[in-house]
Amino acid sequence: MTPAEKMTRLGAQAKNAARAMTRATPEAKNRALLGLAELLREREAAILAANASDVEAARAAGQDSARLDRLTLTPAIMEEMRAACAHVANLPDPVGATESQWQRPNGLLVGKMRIPLGVIAMIYEARPNVTIDAAILCIKAGNAVILRGGSEALHSNTALAQALQDAMVQAGLPADAAQLVTVPGHEAVNALCKLDQYIDVIIPRGGEGLVRAVTEAATMPVLKHFKGVCHAYIEPDADLDKALDIVFNGKVQRPGVCNALECLLVHKDVAARFLPMVAEKLGAADVEFRADAAALPLMSKAPAGSVVPQKSEDLGQEFHNLTLAVRVVADMDEALDHIARYGSNHTEIICTNDHAKAMRFLREADASMVAVNASSRFNDGGQLGLGAEIGISTSKLHAYGAMGVEELTTTKFVVLGQGQVRQ
Amino acid sequence: MTPAEKMTRLGAQAKNAARAMTRATPEAKNRALLGLAELLREREAAILAANASDVEAARAAGQDSARLDRLTLTPAIMEEMRAACAHVANLPDPVGATESQWQRPNGLLVGKMRIPLGVIAMIYEARPNVTIDAAILCIKAGNAVILRGGSEALHSNTALAQALQDAMVQAGLPADAAQLVTVPGHEAVNALCKLDQYIDVIIPRGGEGLVRAVTEAATMPVLKHFKGVCHAYIEPDADLDKALDIVFNGKVQRPGVCNALECLLVHKDVAARFLPMVAEKLGAADVEFRADAAALPLMSKAPAGSVVPQKSEDLGQEFHNLTLAVRVVADMDEALDHIARYGSNHTEIICTNDHAKAMRFLREADASMVAVNASSRFNDGGQLGLGAEIGISTSKLHAYGAMGVEELTTTKFVVLGQGQVRQ
Repeated sequence: MTPAEKMTRLGAQAKNAARAMTRATPEAKNRALLGLAELLREREAAILAANASDVEAARAAGQDSARLDRLTLTPAIMEEMRAACAHVANLPDPVGATESQWQRPNGLLVGKMRIPLGVIAMIYEARPNVTIDAAILCIKAGNAVILRGGSEALHSNTALAQALQDAMVQAGLPADAAQLVTVPGHEAVNALCKLDQYIDVIIPRGGEGLVRAVTEAATMPVLKHFKGVCHAYIEPDADLDKALDIVFNGKVQRPGVCNALECLLVHKDVAARFLPMVAEKLGAADVEFRADAAALPLMSKAPAGSVVPQKSEDLGQEFHNLTLAVRVVADMDEALDHIARYGSNHTEIICTNDHAKAMRFLREADASMVAVNASSRFNDGGQLGLGAEIGISTSKLHAYGAMGVEELTTTKFVVLGQGQVRQ
Repeated sequence: MTPAEKMTRLGAQAKNAARAMTRATPEAKNRALLGLAELLREREAAILAANASDVEAARAAGQDSARLDRLTLTPAIMEEMRAACAHVANLPDPVGATESQWQRPNGLLVGKMRIPLGVIAMIYEARPNVTIDAAILCIKAGNAVILRGGSEALHSNTALAQALQDAMVQAGLPADAAQLVTVPGHEAVNALCKLDQYIDVIIPRGGEGLVRAVTEAATMPVLKHFKGVCHAYIEPDADLDKALDIVFNGKVQRPGVCNALECLLVHKDVAARFLPMVAEKLGAADVEFRADAAALPLMSKAPAGSVVPQKSEDLGQEFHNLTLAVRVVADMDEALDHIARYGSNHTEIICTNDHAKAMRFLREADASMVAVNASSRFNDGGQLGLGAEIGISTSKLHAYGAMGVEELTTTKFVVLGQGQVRQ
């Protein structure tokens, strides 16, 4: 069989399994998740050995340390995966609920029942823990999942997916509801992207290149997460100590992630007070500033050489490191214009004590999370209270922002009649 | 400018206007809709004259009567458009509501605020009333809309879109929030389909060919409505008189529409009682039956020649006329298998008085509307109580089934803090 034929067979199997999954009880699904945690414990040595061979091969192939780091499983990561299984098992089951029901004048009862999406294909990089983290959310929501991780993780993923399938079967659920693609190469991914007769949604998880390639190839809907270019805007009436903590936390706590701050926008009337505080505190944490002409003279408290004149390419940039663009703006209009031009619909925050300004910013800043007086780092399914997340959508269809178990479902109309016909 | 350059300019203008629309009050939007109704009244003669020239040209070009019929505006249709404006103005405004809000352990208040999708592109056939019907729903939901109707309706659409833009401006809203594409030809549509930096969602409305072409070309999400292959399944315990009314209504009341019945599935234990009733009543209404081997001998009460042996291509077929496929099945498993294989995720109904069977069918039949003891013809936004509809989605992402004003919005996370940072 060609890779495309193999993918077609896998897709058809997933579609069949998805029908069985619509009948799965919450109890059976949770039994599979808890059983998986047990199998991950029993098979830990074998899984870590499979992973070690992947890491060895990747190292021999000259992969950089960041990639090796993402590829490596440790006992601690295994423990996190087991904890995630138990945690997701304990989440409320979204499927089957009819969230609202209303009566029509002719007596029909109309409701919207929450149902699984069907078949979800996950395309991700060589991070084996994603195999478990993504699969358990898809299963909890009653879907069949097709998993396609980066080929450097193939041995690890094979061992993990085997545990997953065994747990499904032990719980009385179909093994085909959790299939791993073992065919290497882009041909298999491209074939998956065309199987819209079997796959309801495809979720790419990884760098912008991967997301863009899947989006362009896919004929079915894509839930995508592009880059996070997050701004903080400081109004003159803000509590500046709190604003400083928020900016520090946004930039410094974990600069490599998508909800880290990339650009600080400061109202001109507070720049002379606030920017020296920023220069001092963030400068001491090794932040490098890309400051515009108005900000530059206000940042002399930063360590020598850490304040660099801003270039146009610094705006709209996801630095992924301890770099922060700084710009002084005339007012909120200019801040919102800047965000509309350079933002990436991810996370935008304002620091202000003025209610009307807060409400305006909440309404007009177009991002999946908009916050008042809180760190951008809260844009995360766990932090927002969704229980778990499969990603953060930066496009508006289906879901905008952090996606939890519920975002892996949809609703259908259910209509209960007593013989009604249309006049 | 090339067509592609014109579309890029139009897209950029729409994106700018969409920002202004996020600030539009419900009052301003409703003023635009009611003002539009007035302008449609004032300009009725000119609009009908513009339409007459379109119809004349289409007739001269040899268009068939069905197409001419869809193209033609009448005073009655003008009155329906005005009524739709008033009706949509009176619907609740979905934008700005925070539907639920919860508190996190650290005191953050997290909510989901309903917001417009942004820029919606509507691609539709030469039906000028769609220009108004689609635009007013997009505007009500706070979006900017790009309208691209079939070029045979260009004069009509130009007159209607001018009224729409004038009404927007009179209400203090940007004219660019409702733009008509006047560039003819596929090049313009293809260019629109690539403008994902400006357009948030594209909605094709028309035949399967149009929908498929847009889906394949588009790089942004598509809300699509494919064909409706709707089934009714009759259990032995059903009230057969009511079931007969439901089948009759589904097939006969308006056979050309997507929620009409195409196939009747009858449990073998009731076929000998129910099929003669169907043959007699639907036969008298000129229905032609495509019956399987088990059904054939039970339909002798139908007029001579109206019962034809079923061919394989009759299953899964959207007949668009008074033809009904009829199949006898062993049980609900076989009915659900048939629906999974031949259905189009549109509308599926069961007639039964058994609660457990009804619940099983509701859960397992995969369609945007599943009904018990009610006609398939109720799968319509107005009939379901959504107030109005822009289409029926048969794919599961974002919306599954009838889409009203709310389905032209999305939600974003809004977070209210008092200085919280992430630990």
